[in-house]
Amino acid sequence: MSTQDVNELMQQMGERARAAATAMARANAASKNAALRELARLLGESGAALDAANAQDIARAETAGLSAPMVDRLRLGTKVVATLQEGCLQLAAMPDVIGTIQGLQEQPSGIRVGQMRVPIGVFGMIFESRPNVTIEAASLSIKSGNACILRGGSEAIESNKALAAIVQQALVSAGLPADAVQLVPTTDRAAVGRLIAMPEYVDVIIPRGGKGLIERISAEAKVPVIKHLDGNCHTYVDAPCDLDMAVKLADNAKTQKYSPCNATESLLVAAEMAEAFLPRIGRIYKDKGVEMRCDAASRAILAGHADTRDAQLVDATEEDWSTEYLAPIISVKVVAGLDEAIAHINRYSSQHTEAIVTTDHIHAQRFLREVDSSSVMVNASTRFADGFEYGLGAEIGISTDKFHARGPVGIEGLTSLKYVVLGQGEVRG
Amino acid sequence: MSTQDVNELMQQMGERARAAATAMARANAASKNAALRELARLLGESGAALDAANAQDIARAETAGLSAPMVDRLRLGTKVVATLQEGCLQLAAMPDVIGTIQGLQEQPSGIRVGQMRVPIGVFGMIFESRPNVTIEAASLSIKSGNACILRGGSEAIESNKALAAIVQQALVSAGLPADAVQLVPTTDRAAVGRLIAMPEYVDVIIPRGGKGLIERISAEAKVPVIKHLDGNCHTYVDAPCDLDMAVKLADNAKTQKYSPCNATESLLVAAEMAEAFLPRIGRIYKDKGVEMRCDAASRAILAGHADTRDAQLVDATEEDWSTEYLAPIISVKVVAGLDEAIAHINRYSSQHTEAIVTTDHIHAQRFLREVDSSSVMVNASTRFADGFEYGLGAEIGISTDKFHARGPVGIEGLTSLKYVVLGQGEVRG
Repeated sequence: MSTQDVNELMQQMGERARAAATAMARANAASKNAALRELARLLGESGAALDAANAQDIARAETAGLSAPMVDRLRLGTKVVATLQEGCLQLAAMPDVIGTIQGLQEQPSGIRVGQMRVPIGVFGMIFESRPNVTIEAASLSIKSGNACILRGGSEAIESNKALAAIVQQALVSAGLPADAVQLVPTTDRAAVGRLIAMPEYVDVIIPRGGKGLIERISAEAKVPVIKHLDGNCHTYVDAPCDLDMAVKLADNAKTQKYSPCNATESLLVAAEMAEAFLPRIGRIYKDKGVEMRCDAASRAILAGHADTRDAQLVDATEEDWSTEYLAPIISVKVVAGLDEAIAHINRYSSQHTEAIVTTDHIHAQRFLREVDSSSVMVNASTRFADGFEYGLGAEIGISTDKFHARGPVGIEGLTSLKYVVLGQGEVRG
Repeated sequence: MSTQDVNELMQQMGERARAAATAMARANAASKNAALRELARLLGESGAALDAANAQDIARAETAGLSAPMVDRLRLGTKVVATLQEGCLQLAAMPDVIGTIQGLQEQPSGIRVGQMRVPIGVFGMIFESRPNVTIEAASLSIKSGNACILRGGSEAIESNKALAAIVQQALVSAGLPADAVQLVPTTDRAAVGRLIAMPEYVDVIIPRGGKGLIERISAEAKVPVIKHLDGNCHTYVDAPCDLDMAVKLADNAKTQKYSPCNATESLLVAAEMAEAFLPRIGRIYKDKGVEMRCDAASRAILAGHADTRDAQLVDATEEDWSTEYLAPIISVKVVAGLDEAIAHINRYSSQHTEAIVTTDHIHAQRFLREVDSSSVMVNASTRFADGFEYGLGAEIGISTDKFHARGPVGIEGLTSLKYVVLGQGEVRG
């Protein structure tokens, strides 16, 4: 497509999204839930059509020589579809927050003032590879009364088109506008540039993908961006703490999965606990093949202990303290205590998720209050930083920003509050 | 100053603000409230110093030939100072929202998840003329646990410097960092350009001033902007309604003051009420010298009635429906009913504040739900759209955006929510 054609296409999609957003904002809960249930049903019924579209993407990916894990991410197997159906049904069963009024209170003038939760309007979502994001984004958009324009990865274009067609069928069957969920039908890169620069049609952009993509979009967008950069998450083993719990948490936070953004990348240990704690966790990391990038104090302890002297021990560089490995590597540092731990975290973390393991109530309170990250935890694995685990029902992304939404973003992150004023003829004096 | 000097100055202010923000985020309620009470006391004590600084600004303004109203806006009279003192004391008496935890709830995994209200960090405020904004912004910043960098208008620079010195004295006396409130000491325009482009030091920019200033800042800022554009506010007189109430509200909303952004600029009238209503309000507008820019239907009624045929009646152009007059002018249109009123408002309003006058419950509910503005009102004057009237205690501005904060912005608009997770050693399975 020519750039002009892309611009015209995006402009038309924007106009249609804006019109659909008005209808979605007025839609009652029953219609939105009916659309979600119908979407779940259609996903179950459309196996053959989805398989055919998905097979095209997979064949193209294999011909292009994509790695096996990359090809796997494209697959819309029975299990993936079942999870998507389950997600739609869960959302349909959740209470509708749109139109709820909070804090309605009478003021000295006599007017009653409260805040009504309303949809943001139109959001644009830009994502890579996994086609299931199409359904996750669409279902959250429907439930929250927004309209959305989705731009998936080019490698999943046929799957995404097939899924978007099902979404539109579900919307229409529930009496809602098909344009409430639109997929950008071209893989032309100019479409992204246009999507992020149409403040008249798009209220917010949510990118999901690598840090490079997100930084580029944030720099160029003409509308707000709910962005998730890196997750350099910390677990701090405090003194005093339950050592068994500390070992269990530091193990799970690092090794339960290496690729998620909420995996712990840096382990801080209070000096008082280091001798007792480090060899125990070090032994586990060694057995699981986790490389430890250590400061001098932690290296001395680990290298000096029979269980861990032959572990993969490397001297940490200054860069290690800021690094999100997403791999079987962890940085390790001994700190004097809580103050140094908080200072280190606030300096080096990416403000994503940090946990303290402690039995000291005051330390726990101070950690919660003073660590400036989107999720702060006491005695829990950083791996819990997730919309589903937090009870949001679903997650459109995780925000590492402080503005508008912070941490896992669910339905509320796609809404805004407007003031409602109920009077009986009051005037300003 | 050279551009390089300005850049260095702003960089240093940014670093100091960031450091102060950390201390402010940890500050307890007692210290913040002590600083506010001390600020109120010092404002009362510093009459002579403030007068001297203020006199310099006024002399300069008069020499420069500023208009009398512009010079008046610079004046820090006894009454202005008393209002500022009162504001500080009111804020000190309000509950502290920082550190409060909402929605703490146990999840299926056993972890308890809630959200803690925390300061945004550092905000930059850019404002014109009135020096009292220095104190309003400083006091809100202190109460909300933020640090701020204030950039006032060049015409009030001496007054602002004197006020900022008092604020810093109050902070220090309460054991808080003086750098929590910094005033840009130069009137160099390059300072604004730098202030809005330091995401490493400044988390959000709040401009207050003309639409041109705000659009320019929004276009150039590298951080989020809480912006207030125009207030093209509507009052819609529905059928059925209480006619006496409609007249009282349409009068107050337009004429109580012409310059505020929440004054009504456009009057919509249901056709069924037009014959009875328009001559009554038209007579009042005529007597107060308000020009009416009418559609054909309203003009016919007004021109045909003895009370209003010699009023200032003008044919409205398409542009009138979008115009914020801030003057004794109002656009007037007869609509078929609620649907047309809502459609007209959602097309032409600036999404600031709109009111319906009605006795119909379903119409009221639909107006509240379907009008997409930051404040929607039933049977009240649009002039109530204001942080004080809404019970926010104070107002840093009014947002016409949907993102983060909408409508009058008080302390909560300067805060964010982070997730807190309380566990007992839970891990992800």
